[in-house]
Parts: sequence; structure tokens; C-alpha cells
Amino acid sequence: MPTQMLAARRGIITPEMNHVAQSEFVSAELVRDLVAAGKIVIPANINHRKLIPCGIGRILRTKVNANIGNSALTGDCTAELEKLRQACKFGADTVMDLSTGGNITVIRQEIIKHSTIPLGTVPVYEIVARAGAKNLGGNTLMQVIKAQAEQGVDYMTIHAGLLKHHVPIALKRKLGIVSRGGALIAAWMKENDRENPFYERFDEILEICRQYDVTLSLGDGLRPGCLADASDEAQFAELAELGNLVKRCRQAGVQAMVEGPGHVPLDQIEMNMLKERELCDDAPFYILGPVVTDCAPGYDHLTAAMGGMVGAFHGAAMLCYVTPKEHIGLPNADDVARGLTAFKIAAHAADIALHRPHARDKDDEISDARAIFDWDKQFSCAIEPERPKRYRQEALAVSTPLPASHGSEFCTMCGPDFCSVRLSARLKKES
Amino acid sequence: MPTQMLAARRGIITPEMNHVAQSEFVSAELVRDLVAAGKIVIPANINHRKLIPCGIGRILRTKVNANIGNSALTGDCTAELEKLRQACKFGADTVMDLSTGGNITVIRQEIIKHSTIPLGTVPVYEIVARAGAKNLGGNTLMQVIKAQAEQGVDYMTIHAGLLKHHVPIALKRKLGIVSRGGALIAAWMKENDRENPFYERFDEILEICRQYDVTLSLGDGLRPGCLADASDEAQFAELAELGNLVKRCRQAGVQAMVEGPGHVPLDQIEMNMLKERELCDDAPFYILGPVVTDCAPGYDHLTAAMGGMVGAFHGAAMLCYVTPKEHIGLPNADDVARGLTAFKIAAHAADIALHRPHARDKDDEISDARAIFDWDKQFSCAIEPERPKRYRQEALAVSTPLPASHGSEFCTMCGPDFCSVRLSARLKKES
Repeated sequence: MPTQMLAARRGIITPEMNHVAQSEFVSAELVRDLVAAGKIVIPANINHRKLIPCGIGRILRTKVNANIGNSALTGDCTAELEKLRQACKFGADTVMDLSTGGNITVIRQEIIKHSTIPLGTVPVYEIVARAGAKNLGGNTLMQVIKAQAEQGVDYMTIHAGLLKHHVPIALKRKLGIVSRGGALIAAWMKENDRENPFYERFDEILEICRQYDVTLSLGDGLRPGCLADASDEAQFAELAELGNLVKRCRQAGVQAMVEGPGHVPLDQIEMNMLKERELCDDAPFYILGPVVTDCAPGYDHLTAAMGGMVGAFHGAAMLCYVTPKEHIGLPNADDVARGLTAFKIAAHAADIALHRPHARDKDDEISDARAIFDWDKQFSCAIEPERPKRYRQEALAVSTPLPASHGSEFCTMCGPDFCSVRLSARLKKES
Repeated sequence: MPTQMLAARRGIITPEMNHVAQSEFVSAELVRDLVAAGKIVIPANINHRKLIPCGIGRILRTKVNANIGNSALTGDCTAELEKLRQACKFGADTVMDLSTGGNITVIRQEIIKHSTIPLGTVPVYEIVARAGAKNLGGNTLMQVIKAQAEQGVDYMTIHAGLLKHHVPIALKRKLGIVSRGGALIAAWMKENDRENPFYERFDEILEICRQYDVTLSLGDGLRPGCLADASDEAQFAELAELGNLVKRCRQAGVQAMVEGPGHVPLDQIEMNMLKERELCDDAPFYILGPVVTDCAPGYDHLTAAMGGMVGAFHGAAMLCYVTPKEHIGLPNADDVARGLTAFKIAAHAADIALHRPHARDKDDEISDARAIFDWDKQFSCAIEPERPKRYRQEALAVSTPLPASHGSEFCTMCGPDFCSVRLSARLKKES
């Protein structure tokens, strides 16, 4: 059973490629050619039965990933399935299970069983949870990757680009290494004075990925954790190494995307996107934010969505959402909803600006609905309809009652006499 | 008593200019020269006693305005003063009272009495509330402007650039005229077949503004109300006229800024900022959003903050905040807080990207605090500290209790064993 990439190289248009082409309004031939070239990935493990395939690439609609998963301190299986439901309801294109606490295998099994969207994982978490951080480089490593692939995981974050000689450079930074996986691997390399085991066993990892068509998400263990550390030597040294790994993935017929920053000031986002395109030969760039200011804890769904929008506009293929709890605690189901909504807005705004086919349709529909005060239509066109519905009900409840003749052709912001839309409609009718 | 602009032209550095220079870390001479040239405004009515002056211009820190005010359907004086307190608490640089309901004069009087930040108004609302929309062009017009100037209003939005011949062009749009003031004036012009009375009486208005040093905010009555209408003939025809009015303001020694869009797709924001700079000779650009997607009602504080950040990065001097209630209803005090927080983040992110002096200080401080788990310091550096404090408390309350030896050096996102910051700190110590 070949991977999507190997099939594409043989000229085959798979059902997955067809589905992606139709849902993105592009030709199946284009999807096939870009999958063959590694510029679109379709994470679709052969064992993920319920999967509805999704394409990720710079020329496609911007995707949004939602992270769920427990920590040692909080979160059980029921809570994680609730987060999965929430993620799907609020429009996640993929979901990552980042559990590091108990029951990792069971939680993942349940997620795969229930999820129609691609599932990603970061195997180092399970490796460490099972074997302990000290034994990160032992046999558990390949066992976990193999077991997760067999279970049906569609893509895996592997921090194979963070090499031993990068660590001292990264430790000079203000915030050092803020990637969990990156920090665990760096600590292991330093203590054992050995090279990154994911790097050393990369060919074995590729072999498993090819067998199950697991897409590799080449993790950026050295992503900057604050603006002061952005675009530095450590970050770009690792990115260059990720570019080398992209080549090895493509040689092996394994689909690959590249993960990116992090905390990046607005004026450096475009440069970061172009740099990845150059160093990693346009492998789909999957970015975390980027967060454009460090000093808005509690609001990092906003700081990251703002950076994400700009990143997507300049070429990022997928945005990893950030929730309001980032830097503070584990998100709950409500945080998942809020993070996703902010990122769906960011991705949509970028798609409009990039003139993706039909990207502006809903915007035009909702604007037509606004012009004729069709409130139900406005809600049905909304990226997230529940909040605006509630706002409208609340506003009408507290406002001064009006004669029925006014109908619903106003909102409480201006009231009927100062309503520009009402006035404008009248002028149009008269002219 | 001359205006700030006339003083600057005589070579005088006023106390207001000095204050602006100090708070912005630039020289007083530079502030004076740019006030003289009309590229910085300092809205400071001679009758606004408690005012702490604030400079607005492309080279200064990005400012954020909060709109408050009642409508005919909701809002009284107490509620509006509560919104003012909320606006100041959450960092508004200026506030506009957009009341169109009852008690306009009293509400404004109270706001001026209590406000240390500049107050703006849109006089056409009071004119219409007092005289009725049909009598918009009558004597009430100048009476209201005069009375508001005398009361101490620091800046006024005057829609003098929307001319009779623009109206048919604007009515061809998907959403026509969405500015309240613009729609009222357009309706009056059409019904009376006469030119815009604010345009016709512009010299009288300038006379009053010079007397009290009221800054004119040249309103964009034809701002686009949806993406489909952005950057169209109507919008730019009015903008060119606003450029002519800027010249007349400067000739009269009256400070002026220009108001801008509206709903604009991300890929058109930079062009819009450059166009204003060109057509209006770099008069400070005061933008409403821009909103980057039409279809996120309930979240327009986000859609507008996203566009605002990009606008500020490309030259806008002040952002008018948008609250989550935009397009749905009148904001309450909580909405004011949420809108402001989103916009303070946007303005701050732009200032960092523009390398404004000391813009990144708080970011660097909070990052240092993160590295050593100084939670109190993190909260004190936060743009809005209340939410992150609450999140931390809530997270600790629901998490599994830990041995006291762990201290507070973790958060519930990863727990102590998977904490990258903890690991990174250990590695730094060891190296």
C-alpha cells in the first residue's frame, strides 16, 4: 500500500486527492502533482477508518489545528472526548492529542475512533510518560512510534532537527527552549552526550511512516518563546536542518510538513514564512501562532490569531490554534471553542486576502442579509453563530419596547431613527 | 489664545507638546515641528480642564479610542460614566461620546468633568436628536458645534467630505452608506437637493475650532460597510475631498485628522494607508478597524483588531476600537473592556513591529518573569492582568495537589515533569 505521495508520483489520483480537489475548488491533477512534489500533504493513515481527508498546502484553504490532551495534573478521557467534539463543532481541520498524563493509549484510541478529521500526536510525550525522561533514547522510542502508526495516527510531530550542537546556542537565549519535546530531547542529549535519537533513527521512523502513510510534522524544538528570541541563530539553524529532513522524507516517499514559530514580532513574520519556503522547498508550513506580543497572557488566542492571519497571508498552510489559557494552564472545552473561533477568523481573513476560490462567499451573503435585516441569515452565515444570537436576544430584552411597526429593521446600537442601514435602504429605494 | 498648531508655527513648545514628547520618548522640537505641519495633532480644548494631553500621529505610539454613548433604546448617564471608567481602566487613549438618545448635553458635561483623556463627539447626532433629521441643515447645526466646543470637547467628527454628487455612487454599493452621520447627511441632501451643510459652513466651523482649539476629525461618511464595497470609487472620491479639507484646516490653523475604513480585506489595508498619506498629506489617520471579514458577528473586536494592527503597522495613527457587539447592539461596560483589550494588543503589536522607543520593554520583562516563574511579575506586566490571574487561580484549584517541593514552578498546561521552562532553566544552570 503506497503513500499518497508515492501514488501521486505514479500518476494516480487517489480518492483522497479527489476529495481534496473538490472541497478546495481546484483540479485533481493539480492536487496530485503537488502531493507528488511534497507541496501538499494529505495526512491519512491507512488505519484511520472514519477519516474525511484534508489537504494541507500553501495554495489550499488555510487549515486550523486544535490541540487537546491531558496533563499529569488534569484531564481524563471523557474530558478529552468533549474537547474533540468541541473542536469539530467549532471547525477544527485537524486535532492533535498532546496528552502527557495517564491513559494516553486509551484516550488516543477513543479519539481515533470518534474523529473524522486527521489526528496528530507528539510521540515523545508517550515515550517519556512510559519510559521516563532519562530513557527517552531507548527502545520505547520506536515501539511507541510503531504502535501509534498502527493505531491510525495521521501525522506525528518528530523533533529530529534539533541537534546536539544547537543546544548551547539555544541556551543563550532569554527563554531557552520552550518546546516541551525540544526541551526533553535537549536535556537527554546533554545528559548522555549523544545525538538526538529521533535524528539517529530517522530512517527507521521513515520506514514506519511509509508503511502506514503517516505524515511527518517536522517539529521546531527551538521555536522562539519570546519576541527577544525570534529569528535567531538557534531557530534558523534548526530550520535549515528541517529542510534537510524534508528532502529525506521526500526521497522515502513520506509526506512531510514543517512546524514553525512561536513568538515573532509582526515585522518579522513575512521574512519567516519566506525563509521556510526557501530552506524547506515549500513543504507545507504549520505554524504555532505566531504570537505578536509576549505581554497579553489570558488573551493569547488573540495575539496568536493576529500573527497567524499574517503568517497565512504570507504562505503558512496550517495554523495551530492557541487558547486563552496559553502560558497559564490546560485549556478546557470552552477555551477550545474560543481559541478555534479566533483562528477560524484569522484563517478566513487570510483566505479572502489570498483570493482563494469562493473564500468571500459567506461575507457577501451576510452583507446582503445585513442590508435587508435578515437576522436569521446573518446568524447562519456567521463563523460562530451562538454568540451573536445570544447578543441580539439580550439586547432586545433590555431595550425600550418599540411600536410593532418598526419590525426588526434595526439594532440597539443605533435604534431605528439613527440606523444607517435603514436610511441607506430607503435612499436606494427612492433613487 | 492660539491653537497648538498656531503656537507650534510660531516656534513655541507648549506644555502639551512637552508632555507628549516626554511620554513618547521623542524630542519636543520634533513634536512641535510635526504639530506645525499637521502631522501630529494634540486634541486639547482650552476648556477641558482635567485633560492630560495626548499626541496622535504616525510617528507616535499607536493610540486607541473607545466609543461610548447611549442610543434612543438604551443607556443612561450612570451607565455611560461607568463605561468611561471602564475605558480609562482598560487603557483608552481617547474616548468618543456617540450618544444619540436622551440627555446628550448632561452626559457629555459629566464625561468632560470626569475625563482626563481627550473627548471626541459627532455633533450631527445631537443636531438630529434636537432638531430632527429633516432640519439637519438649519441653525441648530452651528449652535450645537459652538456649544460643544465651549463645553470642552477636544475633537469632533465632521462629515464634510461627503458631497451631493457622491451619493448616487455610494448607493450602487452592496451596503450603501453605513456611517450613521453619513447616511443622515446623504438623506438630507437628497431630500433637499442641496449640498452638505457641514461642507457649506466649513469656514464657520473652522472659526469655532480655532477659537477653542477643537481638533477636527474629518469623518468618512462613505466608509465601506462590507468587503465587497472596500476601496471603491465612493470611498476614494470622499477621501480625496477630505484631503482638500485637510488643507483648509491647516490654512486656518486648525488641527485635523482623517477618519478611515471600515471593512477592508487584509490585502488592501496597506494600499489604503498609503493612499490616505498621499491624498491627505500625512494627516493623522484614525481608522475604524478595519474589519477583515464580514462574517464574524459577535467577534468583531477580533476581526477589527486584526485589521487595526496591520493598519497601524502601515501608518495609521489611531485605532477606533470595535466591541464584540458591533453589528448587533449597543455595547455595555464589559464589551468596552473586551474591545479595548483586543485593540490595546493590536496597537502594542504594531508599535513593537515599528520599533517605537521602549515598545518592547514589557515584553522583555514578562519573558524574564516567565523564565523564573515569577507569576506576580507576569501579571503586573500584562496588558490586562485580571483574566490571567483568574485563570491561574482556577487552574490550580482543579489540578491534582502536588508535593510542596514543586513550588510554583510550573503551570497546569504541562505539569512540572513536562515543563519546558523548568527543564530549560535546569539546563542553563548546568551549562
